[in-house]
Amino acid sequence: MIRFERVAVIGVGLIGGSFALGLKKHKLCGHVVGAGRSPANMKLALKRAAIDSMAADPAAAVRDGDLILVATPVAQFEKVFSSIRSNLKPTAIVTDAGSTKRDVVAAARAGLGKKISQFVPAHPVAGAEKSGAAAASADLFKGKRVVLTPLPENSPESIKKIEAAWSACGARVTRMSPEEHDEVFAAVSHLPHLLAYALLSELGERANSKQLFGYAASGFRDFTRIASSHPEMWRDICVANRDCLLTEILSFEKRLTSIASMLEAGDATALEKLFADARAARERWLNGEYE
Amino acid sequence: MIRFERVAVIGVGLIGGSFALGLKKHKLCGHVVGAGRSPANMKLALKRAAIDSMAADPAAAVRDGDLILVATPVAQFEKVFSSIRSNLKPTAIVTDAGSTKRDVVAAARAGLGKKISQFVPAHPVAGAEKSGAAAASADLFKGKRVVLTPLPENSPESIKKIEAAWSACGARVTRMSPEEHDEVFAAVSHLPHLLAYALLSELGERANSKQLFGYAASGFRDFTRIASSHPEMWRDICVANRDCLLTEILSFEKRLTSIASMLEAGDATALEKLFADARAARERWLNGEYE
Repeated sequence: MIRFERVAVIGVGLIGGSFALGLKKHKLCGHVVGAGRSPANMKLALKRAAIDSMAADPAAAVRDGDLILVATPVAQFEKVFSSIRSNLKPTAIVTDAGSTKRDVVAAARAGLGKKISQFVPAHPVAGAEKSGAAAASADLFKGKRVVLTPLPENSPESIKKIEAAWSACGARVTRMSPEEHDEVFAAVSHLPHLLAYALLSELGERANSKQLFGYAASGFRDFTRIASSHPEMWRDICVANRDCLLTEILSFEKRLTSIASMLEAGDATALEKLFADARAARERWLNGEYE
Repeated sequence: MIRFERVAVIGVGLIGGSFALGLKKHKLCGHVVGAGRSPANMKLALKRAAIDSMAADPAAAVRDGDLILVATPVAQFEKVFSSIRSNLKPTAIVTDAGSTKRDVVAAARAGLGKKISQFVPAHPVAGAEKSGAAAASADLFKGKRVVLTPLPENSPESIKKIEAAWSACGARVTRMSPEEHDEVFAAVSHLPHLLAYALLSELGERANSKQLFGYAASGFRDFTRIASSHPEMWRDICVANRDCLLTEILSFEKRLTSIASMLEAGDATALEKLFADARAARERWLNGEYE
């Protein structure tokens, strides 16, 4: 079995902390060193044994490291990659947990320069509305998808090692191009987040918002759950993937306008068919027909 | 304590069945007779003891009844009210479970005629994506809101009795006008349902829908949960409340367009503020500050 003697986690939040706990649980790693912005969060990560030691900064954390996970908000990636570049040993492999991939690859190329072949991009599809080391869990990735978007420069061995690390955490690992990845996730993840934020923002700013929320029920709670996600992280995702996201917003607005036309025309038959088709698609998905 | 010797439930689905089970659990009723379209569902309601006997039709069900609940899809209300009118005894009180109220009141006026004073409209805010007697539960309304929209013709005693019946099932009963009710629920319930249906419909019709759904995760599952609701019921709700719903769609589209402008301008600060404000509104709501 594969083993990483020294692992560095840059950004020990929900994802970084869970990755470390997952590797430890499945005995894939020796020492885990962490680096992060919040001293309180880092202390919690130590206390929860997600990491074994703290480094002063990312550059110090990656020294002698065999496996590096970059799991900070995506806007910090280029700075992080630049700062770790000279300390990366030749056999080290770097992966990440960014929810967008084209911008991450661009940041890695800019930051890592000639060491780009050591970076295998990854997106663990395991967001949650909780954040920080407090929410980390060894089983967060169990049964979840991790999408690798390998680079032409990556060696097959590096890709296999990164695949093994995420698989060991229980993830179902697949591969895509960065472009395809960003299109797919704009539709199934970034747009729904934006819609949930939009609804809360719309209702929260009204004069009668207190009354409105007073009658919101469990359907509203579930619909808006993803709007409890980390605002800074979602700002970065939306800005990084804005071209794909704008395309999705446009398609969604067209769909909404077409539904509004059905309503205006009182076309009950068309509405019922649309609702029934939508529900059927969801049922097929829940039944695993899209796996 | 108040008691209804003979209760009739027209439409013994999730709501009708749960109302009957709730009244029985809290010993508020004697015999419960049910009427409904699906023989299989009615047999299940009998088997689960939600009802004690079946009537051939609504008119037969309400004979000698003290309390009547109309819990069919809203589009059937006028027909149901017309058919029960002559069999309603003078002391009987009728309530309903419609998710819209202006159209229900109009249907009741048309169907019940001079007996309109016996009808106290109600909206139990306890939808679920499950339907039918199989999903009914005595505790469905526990802690949930029930909105009464009393009519000028109602006697205070009738309103109190209906309030007592819903309260006995564990509900938190409040009052509004039918107009205010329809505006509030267009915003916090009907619009979110429509948005969830719209997203599934949009993605489900694409050539690559299989791939897209293959990467949808738990956030998507919760966001779209309400789109597993009953298509016929939601068709009726949307058509009945279409003026308020169209107003909400328009406001939402404006909000979405304003967010798209922030994205186009790359205004990360404005986006993060909007996301943070939205999340804060949701947290206040979850913390009970809007109760």
